[in-house]
Amino acid sequence: MVRVLSNEDVQELLTMEESLKALESAYRAWLRKEAGNLPRSDLYGLSTDESRVYVFKAMAGLWSQEGIAALRLNSDVITWPQGKTVKKEKLPLAPGGRWVGLVLLFSCATGQLLAIFPDGVIQKIRVGAANGLAARHLAREDASTVGLLGSGFQAEGQLEAFCAVRPIRKVKVYSPTEAHRTDFCRRFSERLHVSVEPVKTPEAAVRDADILAAATNTMEPVVDSAWLKPGVHVSTIKRQEISLDVVQGCDRVVVHVRSKGEGPFNYVALGSRGIPEQEEKGWWNDWPEASHPTLPELLVDPSRGRASPEEQTLFINNTGIGLQFAALGALVYRKAVERGKGQTLPDHWFSEDLHS
Amino acid sequence: MVRVLSNEDVQELLTMEESLKALESAYRAWLRKEAGNLPRSDLYGLSTDESRVYVFKAMAGLWSQEGIAALRLNSDVITWPQGKTVKKEKLPLAPGGRWVGLVLLFSCATGQLLAIFPDGVIQKIRVGAANGLAARHLAREDASTVGLLGSGFQAEGQLEAFCAVRPIRKVKVYSPTEAHRTDFCRRFSERLHVSVEPVKTPEAAVRDADILAAATNTMEPVVDSAWLKPGVHVSTIKRQEISLDVVQGCDRVVVHVRSKGEGPFNYVALGSRGIPEQEEKGWWNDWPEASHPTLPELLVDPSRGRASPEEQTLFINNTGIGLQFAALGALVYRKAVERGKGQTLPDHWFSEDLHS
Repeated sequence: MVRVLSNEDVQELLTMEESLKALESAYRAWLRKEAGNLPRSDLYGLSTDESRVYVFKAMAGLWSQEGIAALRLNSDVITWPQGKTVKKEKLPLAPGGRWVGLVLLFSCATGQLLAIFPDGVIQKIRVGAANGLAARHLAREDASTVGLLGSGFQAEGQLEAFCAVRPIRKVKVYSPTEAHRTDFCRRFSERLHVSVEPVKTPEAAVRDADILAAATNTMEPVVDSAWLKPGVHVSTIKRQEISLDVVQGCDRVVVHVRSKGEGPFNYVALGSRGIPEQEEKGWWNDWPEASHPTLPELLVDPSRGRASPEEQTLFINNTGIGLQFAALGALVYRKAVERGKGQTLPDHWFSEDLHS
Repeated sequence: MVRVLSNEDVQELLTMEESLKALESAYRAWLRKEAGNLPRSDLYGLSTDESRVYVFKAMAGLWSQEGIAALRLNSDVITWPQGKTVKKEKLPLAPGGRWVGLVLLFSCATGQLLAIFPDGVIQKIRVGAANGLAARHLAREDASTVGLLGSGFQAEGQLEAFCAVRPIRKVKVYSPTEAHRTDFCRRFSERLHVSVEPVKTPEAAVRDADILAAATNTMEPVVDSAWLKPGVHVSTIKRQEISLDVVQGCDRVVVHVRSKGEGPFNYVALGSRGIPEQEEKGWWNDWPEASHPTLPELLVDPSRGRASPEEQTLFINNTGIGLQFAALGALVYRKAVERGKGQTLPDHWFSEDLHS
């Protein structure tokens, strides 16, 4: 049977500890060519309201050891409101005012569809766990303070991951909307049993922080190179959050994966309309990304990690991979079966008695 | 609500006449950049039984006018048994002895998932309709005889399409297994009200045929250049069915779409194991595909079609595109809603209240 799970199920089933472990194993398998990815591809078209754009995105990954292949897709209607920063807005237009992002899991043993669930919680955890694995090798061993820029959904995963890999005691959080940062801090003080305080400026968040973490949805730099202090570890969830200054100011830089030559590819079907502001015009196009190790390379060779307490280190989660969904999806699925979670649907709805 | 449809539903809803029309409109929209594709990508990995290989394939397309995006995926366990011809075998290992190929339809207006159904019947019809549109411009106006090589699932779609675009009266069918070709002929004589006869050799099928159609699952040439007679139209569903001789012997060649630089990409995660026989070693790698028009180009400029009754013409359905699934999927969905077809599932199972 095919299992339909909810974000709540995924949140309950996926712990950060297990996610860190699963993701590390999957990255190691990838280096041995026992796991792989289809890079993310994006297809843009007009929505029916021509002021809006429709984007379909897909990426996939498989991990032979777990016998799982995963497809992650997003089906979004977007606008680019012209605010202070160039920010893409995804409109919740699906019935009930909702967004559409899904993960489908398949068995490599039989081909069958095993599960379908929304991508939100697993997305947060896979990004958090990747930055957490990087911090394990790049942050100071005794790192105990985090300065967090952002209080959204990605910020949650980042903070959970740092607390899992370092003895974090104090967190300062800045985000532009006071109510958001206050709410975030209230929830996380309870959940993580550490001090999580809202602050009124980015500088106040990052001053003296051992880990300076950006987890925002802006498309413009939020980290200032003037904030780089000896021993800091800078962690970002996308290239757009930092400037080339920050990259050049750090002693050691690790990227998530090689993004060049892999995608994202944008296949645009917009007639005569263009995309208001392309996201792909950035310093990274001319930057020698390949001269820095990737996270999987760092994991198998920790000598590429922090070498002294004074080093300034940087992890750029430059692009995601489908394998992350296969690795964490395998974990979700195994536990969902054990605990009998989710709705179940008949297999024959999702299979057929003929093939091409 | 999300509609789950069956192959039987799709067969009932999609007529060849309407499919030809929808596909033609979609190809025209594509040339105007009002429709688009994510090219097919393939991800290979080991199955749990290491003598088998798991392959995940995906392609996508969107058609703004209909407000539909479609994803088509295949999740197959395969072997390459070493027979007389190099043939890939897909193993029906999903529960009930079934295969897994699915189409998911999304709304470009809201992003929501609209429908899920198996890919078998729509696959047959999209390939048939593409070759049918080509035959409309490349076969003689008075073409009345078809020599068909193959009696499987793809052969059905080909024959239906030729009968829709030309006054076909007589069909001869060859395929290696006598029982298969006899059964095929019995079913199609009834369904199409034309004479459909099994024959014992490929030559007997194609001799004097106005349309020489290959619709096989072999990976080796089945069309002999000695069979090319004045006025013939040769129609193939894949490049592997013909040799370079046949291409060079024809006066006019049209391909489905540009396949170079678009994929398929093979992302292989097979550890130290290789793929026994790569399918992509063929004459077409050195062949100037770009010097021939594509089917969409032929549709908007019929002067690229047959110019005289004596010409020998060739259509190579070199690779499929996701847009075909969006075009025919839009039709399936509209009619399924009108007629209340399929199982319905709640929207909130396939959407979420957060996004990244």
